[in-house]
Amino acid sequence: MGRVTSRTPVLRIRGAAHSTRPDTVAAEEPLEIRLAGKALAVTMRTPGDDFDLVHGFLATEAVIGSADDIAGLRYCNSVDEDGRNTYNVVDVDLAPGVEPPDTALDRNFYTSSSCGVCGKASIDAIRTKTRHDVAGDDVRLPLPTLLALPDRLRAAQQVFDKTGGLHAAGLFTADGELVALREDVGRHNAVDKVVGDAVRQGRLPLAGHVLMVSGRASFELTQKAAMAGIPVLAAVSAPSSLAVELAADVGITLVGFLRGDGCNVYTRTERIVVEE
Amino acid sequence: MGRVTSRTPVLRIRGAAHSTRPDTVAAEEPLEIRLAGKALAVTMRTPGDDFDLVHGFLATEAVIGSADDIAGLRYCNSVDEDGRNTYNVVDVDLAPGVEPPDTALDRNFYTSSSCGVCGKASIDAIRTKTRHDVAGDDVRLPLPTLLALPDRLRAAQQVFDKTGGLHAAGLFTADGELVALREDVGRHNAVDKVVGDAVRQGRLPLAGHVLMVSGRASFELTQKAAMAGIPVLAAVSAPSSLAVELAADVGITLVGFLRGDGCNVYTRTERIVVEE
Repeated sequence: MGRVTSRTPVLRIRGAAHSTRPDTVAAEEPLEIRLAGKALAVTMRTPGDDFDLVHGFLATEAVIGSADDIAGLRYCNSVDEDGRNTYNVVDVDLAPGVEPPDTALDRNFYTSSSCGVCGKASIDAIRTKTRHDVAGDDVRLPLPTLLALPDRLRAAQQVFDKTGGLHAAGLFTADGELVALREDVGRHNAVDKVVGDAVRQGRLPLAGHVLMVSGRASFELTQKAAMAGIPVLAAVSAPSSLAVELAADVGITLVGFLRGDGCNVYTRTERIVVEE
Repeated sequence: MGRVTSRTPVLRIRGAAHSTRPDTVAAEEPLEIRLAGKALAVTMRTPGDDFDLVHGFLATEAVIGSADDIAGLRYCNSVDEDGRNTYNVVDVDLAPGVEPPDTALDRNFYTSSSCGVCGKASIDAIRTKTRHDVAGDDVRLPLPTLLALPDRLRAAQQVFDKTGGLHAAGLFTADGELVALREDVGRHNAVDKVVGDAVRQGRLPLAGHVLMVSGRASFELTQKAAMAGIPVLAAVSAPSSLAVELAADVGITLVGFLRGDGCNVYTRTERIVVEE
């Protein structure tokens, strides 16, 4: 439990220099999420902040609206071949009156948890499901504040420098203050952990906030931002076409290629204040 | 169909220069794979090479062993709100005697398609399911050939320079010749397309070959390499702990941080020939 990194012997080759020595790699283990004992989803994640991950996953999948919708959660007694608890299974009891996902929708639920859902119908569904008025959020973000986020995210990352293998998600205020940072082998898990931390503190919707992610901006991450009520999503790298489309539909400001002294703003550009 | 990129207006900010103009983004659309009309999986992919993707997905998920196991496949008449075929649903008829996945295993099947499967038991399952003797593959790869792969992959990429948003997977011979290259918003899709192309040409197992991927090496990609009988998996960036573990178990040579004049070799290092 909580092994964020793991050591493994490696043949290291740099030009003419070769050496065999231990190296640090990012830990990746499965996490099975159960509702009242029934398997709901399995995700490959970096161990740690698992309860945040579960809260964020359930919130961004519209199963819960706040931490009050969860009556309790615990690690199951799942054991490995040596009889040790793996800490890789979390069982959740929903509060009375909170409905588990319709089992008839299990199929879509599953796929949506990891690779997005099916096109235009789903984009409409997401807009309906979102309880928060993201489009009406009138936050304004000065350009210098936006441009400073990548360095702040990078400076706050603990594990990346050791393994080079983790995605990061950071939640910032409109003043550029870091609220929460999480790292994971899966970018969607890093976002779920950040959102889940806010869910557990009763801070949803995250109006006026910025979510910054390493790497690219996919449909799935845009969907998660919308479900958490976050009006600005910024990525170090490129967005996909469906991410741009969803951001336009739900009223999220989508920023890509945020690096150095520049960026691309794809939607709701008025929230980024460019001083003349 | 086949829209690999999409145009969208963007506010482009570079230092003091700001301009609004059309920009190219990587296309992302859902693809639903059906078996005899029954939904099996949905993946967010870049349109194009969809039949390769379906063949590769079914082969790396152990549903089919060769192209002969598919009697036919076609785009369904799925239409968007304007009545146009979306080309986002492919229906597959398996050949007589080929069993569809056990519906009791649907749940695991789904999650494994996108985010890996559950730990040690699954690693054992993968090793059992692989029909190919990857561990016994005695291919040898000269270090200079290995080090040349990233530039060859990059040179062959068509779309990346336009969008910055696509993952690439390339299949190479042990001589460093590029056999196939595919790009996709999803790295696992790019690999499925490369493997599917080989499946359709009757070229599995891909003994003696090298699979090179942009980005990181996950458990899932290692699993796909094993299922395709590929003995060497090389990634530009870091591997995860479970990728290293699976590679060791099935006998794949796993190379990470393959860039410039160096790399890290995590498993089965004897296949990389370092000249003294």
